[in-house]
Amino acid sequence: MEDQTRREQASPAVRKRVQDSFDRQGLMSHLGARLAHIGPGRVRIVLPSRPEVTQQHGYVHAGATSAIADSAGGYAALTLFDEDSDVLTVEYKINLLAPAAGDHLEAIGTVLRPGRTLTVCGLEVYGVQGDGTRKLVANGQQTLIRVNRSAE
Amino acid sequence: MEDQTRREQASPAVRKRVQDSFDRQGLMSHLGARLAHIGPGRVRIVLPSRPEVTQQHGYVHAGATSAIADSAGGYAALTLFDEDSDVLTVEYKINLLAPAAGDHLEAIGTVLRPGRTLTVCGLEVYGVQGDGTRKLVANGQQTLIRVNRSAE
Amino acid sequence: MEDQTRREQASPAVRKRVQDSFDRQGLMSHLGARLAHIGPGRVRIVLPSRPEVTQQHGYVHAGATSAIADSAGGYAALTLFDEDSDVLTVEYKINLLAPAAGDHLEAIGTVLRPGRTLTVCGLEVYGVQGDGTRKLVANGQQTLIRVNRSAE
Amino acid sequence: MEDQTRREQASPAVRKRVQDSFDRQGLMSHLGARLAHIGPGRVRIVLPSRPEVTQQHGYVHAGATSAIADSAGGYAALTLFDEDSDVLTVEYKINLLAPAAGDHLEAIGTVLRPGRTLTVCGLEVYGVQGDGTRKLVANGQQTLIRVNRSAE
Repeated sequence: MEDQTRREQASPAVRKRVQDSFDRQGLMSHLGARLAHIGPGRVRIVLPSRPEVTQQHGYVHAGATSAIADSAGGYAALTLFDEDSDVLTVEYKINLLAPAAGDHLEAIGTVLRPGRTLTVCGLEVYGVQGDGTRKLVANGQQTLIRVNRSAE
Repeated sequence: MEDQTRREQASPAVRKRVQDSFDRQGLMSHLGARLAHIGPGRVRIVLPSRPEVTQQHGYVHAGATSAIADSAGGYAALTLFDEDSDVLTVEYKINLLAPAAGDHLEAIGTVLRPGRTLTVCGLEVYGVQGDGTRKLVANGQQTLIRVNRSAE
Repeated sequence: MEDQTRREQASPAVRKRVQDSFDRQGLMSHLGARLAHIGPGRVRIVLPSRPEVTQQHGYVHAGATSAIADSAGGYAALTLFDEDSDVLTVEYKINLLAPAAGDHLEAIGTVLRPGRTLTVCGLEVYGVQGDGTRKLVANGQQTLIRVNRSAE
Repeated sequence: MEDQTRREQASPAVRKRVQDSFDRQGLMSHLGARLAHIGPGRVRIVLPSRPEVTQQHGYVHAGATSAIADSAGGYAALTLFDEDSDVLTVEYKINLLAPAAGDHLEAIGTVLRPGRTLTVCGLEVYGVQGDGTRKLVANGQQTLIRVNRSAE
């Protein structure tokens, strides 16, 4: 699974554009999330476990799990757009497969089908232990729409 | 829409159980969300707009919008369970219908179909202006599973 | 629930356009489905129970239930478009709430949020007994895109 | 993608159980669908294109596409259950990515996360041309529940 294509980097210009947008998302920094990898059509976001992101049993809240999954998918789409385009989430669906436990969560957004108007992404979230053990804790699917940046 | 049934209160014991669980969700207080109403099969959560919950355009992030919707649905289900039961989100799907703007967001979770094992909720999120104007900004559907509290 | 607005008819031109499109859907006639009501932003489709539409326990198959729900939502959107526009389903999500039993099923598609590009519909399917008793057997949410009819 | 694991066969007893259940689904034979492969946690169903399964533009109707995807996922889950268990669809979400064109459609259901009560499957549908060219036309995610066969 950790093959070479999955480690490919997007161009510096694309990475800067994604990082700048991410830095403007107040929620991501408030949750403590950070961009871990920006590839063409594939973005990873890491969220350390801490009390501020939990649900009632001490696991990461479905809302926080979803938030990083949603952002990972959105930025995966954005890597494929030109610089005049921005992206909005139309909808997503996510299954919470297992308690979101671990030292940190890693969300991976992957473009399944790029499009001029609509883009569809697959979303995965893994719980990662300190020793590197990974477990799929959430899996989802997301529809995004490209919007004209100047029109906003 | 704002009819009497929608304002009905759950019993004091149920409201205490829901409020106690909500207070254990680190994410809800970290986002600044609060329980606004606990009715039988229907719960409202309010989230004030502030920079800590935004996406890149300054609107409330889909992840924060979803987090309060998910919690509202989960607690709506919990109001119908006995005290030995707890609730976990199996999955949800949410459409982001309009930019999540407003003085605050109000998420409403409503049980559509209660069940011994699975419960299905409808999720709505409104953007509410200071003058009380309301606009539906997100709409979703959620599946929850009842779990035995002692088994956790 | 059966209030007057829900019985309102779309204009004759719109009803003709919807009926003509429905008549071109080979699947609908093959399943035995028919349009029962065409209102502005709201369409009902009826599917009689018969062996050709069942799953392994003799209830109506989730696929047949979904097919009429999907068509009801699509045509609900189409009632709000001008005659040069057509509609395609982007995605939908449906919960099967109870065994789809009854003399016939009735699917209701209702536009929740009309849009220039994307339209979101709510989907409900009822199992209806010979005596008129109705039970909600499926509930869903659908995203549709408007396409230019001449561009097809 | 067409690696060896994907071609592995389930045991004869499991294959018989799945085939028998499939043969009781009136909808599958009415649509003209057939089981193409039964592997452990992975089932393929083929649907030839013909006028009886179309939407208004002559492509395969989203409802027929979904019906074979739903059945493929359900039977993928069933291959992992013991003979006293049966399976019901709780919900699914499907994106229609491209017009469902081709000589036939092939739906593939794959268990993502097996469970004692709930199982989650990934759903893919390909449009396949006479020359073997394949295109992903739909992608989805499905939640299933195991039920006791004798309790039905």
